[in-house]
Amino acid sequence: MKINVLDTTLRDGEQTPGISLTASEKLRIAIKLDEIGVNIIEAGSAITSIGERKGIKTVVNEGLNAEISSFARAVRVDVDAALECGVDSVHLVVPTSDLHITHKLKKTREEVLFQAIDAAEYALDHGLIVELSAEDATRSDMDYLKKIFSAGIDVGVQRICACDTVGMLTPERSLDYYSELVKLGAPLSVHCHNDFGLAVANTLSAIRAGATEFHCTVNGIGERAGNASFEETVVSLDTLYGDYQTDIQINQLYDTSKLVARLTGVYLQPNKAIVGENAFAHESGIHADGVIKNAATYEPITPELVGHKRKFVMGKHIGEHGLKNRLKELNLNFNQDQCDEIFKRVKSLGDLGKSVTDVDLQAIADDVLEIEREKKINLEEVTIVSGNKVIPTASVKLKIDNKDILEADVGVGPVDAAIGAVKKGIASFADVELEEYHVDAITGGTNALIDVILKLRLGDKIISARSTQPDIINASVEAYLSGVNRLLENEDD
Amino acid sequence: MKINVLDTTLRDGEQTPGISLTASEKLRIAIKLDEIGVNIIEAGSAITSIGERKGIKTVVNEGLNAEISSFARAVRVDVDAALECGVDSVHLVVPTSDLHITHKLKKTREEVLFQAIDAAEYALDHGLIVELSAEDATRSDMDYLKKIFSAGIDVGVQRICACDTVGMLTPERSLDYYSELVKLGAPLSVHCHNDFGLAVANTLSAIRAGATEFHCTVNGIGERAGNASFEETVVSLDTLYGDYQTDIQINQLYDTSKLVARLTGVYLQPNKAIVGENAFAHESGIHADGVIKNAATYEPITPELVGHKRKFVMGKHIGEHGLKNRLKELNLNFNQDQCDEIFKRVKSLGDLGKSVTDVDLQAIADDVLEIEREKKINLEEVTIVSGNKVIPTASVKLKIDNKDILEADVGVGPVDAAIGAVKKGIASFADVELEEYHVDAITGGTNALIDVILKLRLGDKIISARSTQPDIINASVEAYLSGVNRLLENEDD
Repeated sequence: MKINVLDTTLRDGEQTPGISLTASEKLRIAIKLDEIGVNIIEAGSAITSIGERKGIKTVVNEGLNAEISSFARAVRVDVDAALECGVDSVHLVVPTSDLHITHKLKKTREEVLFQAIDAAEYALDHGLIVELSAEDATRSDMDYLKKIFSAGIDVGVQRICACDTVGMLTPERSLDYYSELVKLGAPLSVHCHNDFGLAVANTLSAIRAGATEFHCTVNGIGERAGNASFEETVVSLDTLYGDYQTDIQINQLYDTSKLVARLTGVYLQPNKAIVGENAFAHESGIHADGVIKNAATYEPITPELVGHKRKFVMGKHIGEHGLKNRLKELNLNFNQDQCDEIFKRVKSLGDLGKSVTDVDLQAIADDVLEIEREKKINLEEVTIVSGNKVIPTASVKLKIDNKDILEADVGVGPVDAAIGAVKKGIASFADVELEEYHVDAITGGTNALIDVILKLRLGDKIISARSTQPDIINASVEAYLSGVNRLLENEDD
Repeated sequence: MKINVLDTTLRDGEQTPGISLTASEKLRIAIKLDEIGVNIIEAGSAITSIGERKGIKTVVNEGLNAEISSFARAVRVDVDAALECGVDSVHLVVPTSDLHITHKLKKTREEVLFQAIDAAEYALDHGLIVELSAEDATRSDMDYLKKIFSAGIDVGVQRICACDTVGMLTPERSLDYYSELVKLGAPLSVHCHNDFGLAVANTLSAIRAGATEFHCTVNGIGERAGNASFEETVVSLDTLYGDYQTDIQINQLYDTSKLVARLTGVYLQPNKAIVGENAFAHESGIHADGVIKNAATYEPITPELVGHKRKFVMGKHIGEHGLKNRLKELNLNFNQDQCDEIFKRVKSLGDLGKSVTDVDLQAIADDVLEIEREKKINLEEVTIVSGNKVIPTASVKLKIDNKDILEADVGVGPVDAAIGAVKKGIASFADVELEEYHVDAITGGTNALIDVILKLRLGDKIISARSTQPDIINASVEAYLSGVNRLLENEDD
């Protein structure tokens, strides 16, 4: 059975408190959604503002394959705003629960029914595809709900949609509920919210009941606890159920997730299913051991399926197999005694409450294996001056191959200036690109530790390095130099 | 029906790659879990390391009401480690799928069965309660699985547990699957992973099938996509199902979530169900309008139920009702024309891709209402010097009531020094406490914008302020002073 995807990242997703996308950001996301195979893109709610209409028009003008839709309340002014944008369809939403009708709209059921059908006919008369959608449908009187949908079907709406607006369905209730609506004979959509963490499960149940379209957002963003997650629903259908096909190119899910996270600023918790940074990360000894022997032991799907990557993380739970594997990746030769000693030290670092990064592991291994690594570049001194009436300025003194190098630079802020000065100092022999600079979210006082993580590239080699210090400038420079030194070492191999 | 909760935040949760808790952090979480009514606390895996055993012993010695458990593989050495810690019980885990038995353990089914029963008897003989748990149970041969469980029940294990180790169940398969295991007659536990976003739904299905205990972690943390979320499962049982009771004090869920986020460093995405920062936040016009009239329109439960708070966020989706409500909260008087103008400006700020904070709204309103607010404290100049061989030092020049105030301070880093200097400058008349200092996660180059958000308290008034600039020091000082000025204004009201 073919299942269509209506992605509402640009409407429900953008309603996430604090998010606001510009027209060009909307377009970038819409292009990606189109590429990955989304059937219907809800590009916004045209009535919202001039800027919102500009965003929707920009998406419409791109001439994508997907059907472009606008949200509209069941009033003619909203339909007019949608028409102005040139969309293919409207997601025409009418509240159907008595709670919404009485308390929010202060109308009667009859008035709402009349209004819904009037708006639907108006939209149809103007050539729009209409998906007639019942808001708070799952807390509505079923007879009244069917009455509205039937009236809509009679006037020619192409699809009907029932929204679980506050996420109160359970998987078993969803199955019964949508089974009842399938009987109306029109193509049925499901729109679930995640207030109890059940949006994906409820969406899957509705599809089992016979819904042929589902609404979702990338990363599950949206108002409150958000909507059914695009990636979780698509991959569940693909992997856990055999009977349903979507047009989605699953191997682009991770990229899509990253794009939306970056443009919306809603970053994911590491354990987000499918697309979180840890979704295919393994630390614990038993797990890493199993995955090395056969990835299927602790991975339900391969990371490549969704365009993601597997990673192993050191830490106190690391087992001997995981550790050996990582040491080999670092091109280190060791005997069993040395391995035991490294193992012991990694564990005790973990016991202190520290996570163990690649650089930490290398340092421990170097010590145990008595490897003397000469750092090519040593930081002798860094000084910065900054302020609101001072051009941020940094000076550095580096010792490189026993020669002192002095450099200075300015920047938009002190960190930028300091890294600029270091880059100048090493420019003659190392063309190291800073690929990512990340200041980790820290809550606490101003004397809290600042965690700087960065990714550096030299040719096709990428390395990540970190430094944690109370001073963001020292942390940035140290992390940068430790990464550069590692990159240069490897170059000598 | 009474349902028991086994919380494994301190074991499965701590296996989240990169997390490592010290003994005292483990204890703080364990005390909170005990307070909130968790029945069984899995405090760790005793075999892991000396530090891990110290952590488990610390929890055991606290004499909590909850049963304290240790994870143990089905080998005597693991049981011995658990015994050394003085726990009440072991979560005795044995892989049962051929995939795990053949590829990970490289054993036969018979060997594994023998080993499991040997370890169970050994633990029972030493006075431990045994929960015999099948790893990768959901990909195991059902006959073999039953054989192991039956053998365990015969030797006296108190509970059995089936783990959906890679999260491949669906709600309907979970119902069938656990229904089959309930027939064995022993108290049954469910342990679900969240690889497809279905852990909570699958856990609920298992409980419907007759499981009387579920495993979970606070915030759903854990290896890969994590485990069934404690808060989502508990609130779903409480709100969506009538037939099951837990001992959990639901109104402490938010606090518990915050504590675990802080101590593990795994922060939640804002749209995390139940406990995310946006779980009860409303921005869009229609939603905020509805919630103001009757919160139930867009809230399935009250935020107070779980110890959380409702909030309204300004933005381009804000409707007139939401805006008026917020302006009234800010004690502003306005007529309809002024409200329309404020409304228009908030929308256009939103169209530029900006979220609209309280301070932004106040600035717009002040301008429209022609309110001249004199800032009590004006920043004339701030200068900082820092480096790896320089004591971070800051000087500030503030104009306060037309007098110039000069101050200087040192700190652990330049931000700390600068805020210190400002605090000295205002100490004589404002005892403002910095409650929270937050550098927002920023990915990009070193010239990216740094978003500083802080919370300040003056007496019982709390205000949040923000500044976004490329320079972290300027951003911090500006945010601090704008917050202090706002607090002092309100004092004059």
